[in-house]
Amino acid sequence: MAAQANTSVKALVFDAYGTLFDVHSVAALADRLFPGKGDALSQLWRNRQLQYTWLLSLMDRYEDFAVVTEKALVFACASLGLACPPATRAQLMNAYLELSPLPGVHDALARVSRVPLAILSNGSPGMLAPLVKNAGLEGRFTHVISADARRVYKPSPRVYQLGPDTLGLPAASIGFVSSNSFDAQGAKAFGYTTFWVNATGSVAEELGFTPDATLSNLRELEGKI
Amino acid sequence: MAAQANTSVKALVFDAYGTLFDVHSVAALADRLFPGKGDALSQLWRNRQLQYTWLLSLMDRYEDFAVVTEKALVFACASLGLACPPATRAQLMNAYLELSPLPGVHDALARVSRVPLAILSNGSPGMLAPLVKNAGLEGRFTHVISADARRVYKPSPRVYQLGPDTLGLPAASIGFVSSNSFDAQGAKAFGYTTFWVNATGSVAEELGFTPDATLSNLRELEGKI
Repeated sequence: MAAQANTSVKALVFDAYGTLFDVHSVAALADRLFPGKGDALSQLWRNRQLQYTWLLSLMDRYEDFAVVTEKALVFACASLGLACPPATRAQLMNAYLELSPLPGVHDALARVSRVPLAILSNGSPGMLAPLVKNAGLEGRFTHVISADARRVYKPSPRVYQLGPDTLGLPAASIGFVSSNSFDAQGAKAFGYTTFWVNATGSVAEELGFTPDATLSNLRELEGKI
Repeated sequence: MAAQANTSVKALVFDAYGTLFDVHSVAALADRLFPGKGDALSQLWRNRQLQYTWLLSLMDRYEDFAVVTEKALVFACASLGLACPPATRAQLMNAYLELSPLPGVHDALARVSRVPLAILSNGSPGMLAPLVKNAGLEGRFTHVISADARRVYKPSPRVYQLGPDTLGLPAASIGFVSSNSFDAQGAKAFGYTTFWVNATGSVAEELGFTPDATLSNLRELEGKI
């Protein structure tokens, strides 16, 4: 919504899942494994993946994001009445390491690469490294930062603190970019300059914080910094 | 699943929303206000009500449960494209103070009343008092305990700690009763003897904790303590 460039932004930090990488690119495989149920499985899997990060964080029972993702898959299959033996589960989990970058990501990142770019994700290092590599994005980021370093998940301020700590910049000088409304608002509450990428025209969550700008796609970032 | 009575249980602590009171009893009013959309609104409202308790807790941005409930209602209406002016919103919020007790609640509580009974709920005191009164359950509980005292929501162990602190009993001697799978598992992780009331045959969440017993209705409690 803010029309003017924000020249105080000295670096950009990106959420990974849903912002750079398409979490629903597993739906095609899921649909081959479970004909007609791929979309439903993908949606429910993602839904519980997020819920479990919040719940386990609140319970002080952190688990690695790969474990959380697999637990969410087990629930989603059981809930939809789909038999998901270990080999099938392994196939779907492996697909999560090869999520497609969202359309336009390479170009959008190239256009803002005059500032340092980083990832700050719930993904554990073992999940993020192959993801970035498979997408051909190695070398594009100065840092790939994982919530795993704090053993808690977004939107905990302890996760967001990793950005300033790693980049050596105050939060307000860092542009935080996420397509997840809760994440954009969590980052804003923490103190980042925040960009919410709302490509699908979603309704904003009602958490009480307003991003500095809402973009309809990642390419619009170029005009904002 | 434990078939035998658990005679070590010296008190019972109940979740309120969904366990004693029917959160979807607002659907009828919602359907009068928004014909054909009552169920969808009620489901999405409850979904975001829970999500916002988790998110705001993780953000260290606690808000009173009435505020959270109203924020969730605003999101749900906007998301479903329903105009919800202040008077309509007030009507729906007021219905939340008059939720119906679930079928069989009075009888089930009467059958276990040889031990002290309490409520431990996310609801703020201002929401719980009219709820209990409207249901004719005043006097049934020795304590109505609110997460508000800790300014954080379930499944934080800081909320569950209110049970032992208030009742003067160790957690393992208290039977915690909830129909919400995440709540039953959070309570088990904390250390309560836990009863999950699964009246609808739901799939258990995959949070890593197994309740001591799963009941198909609240009346089965009588044989468990």
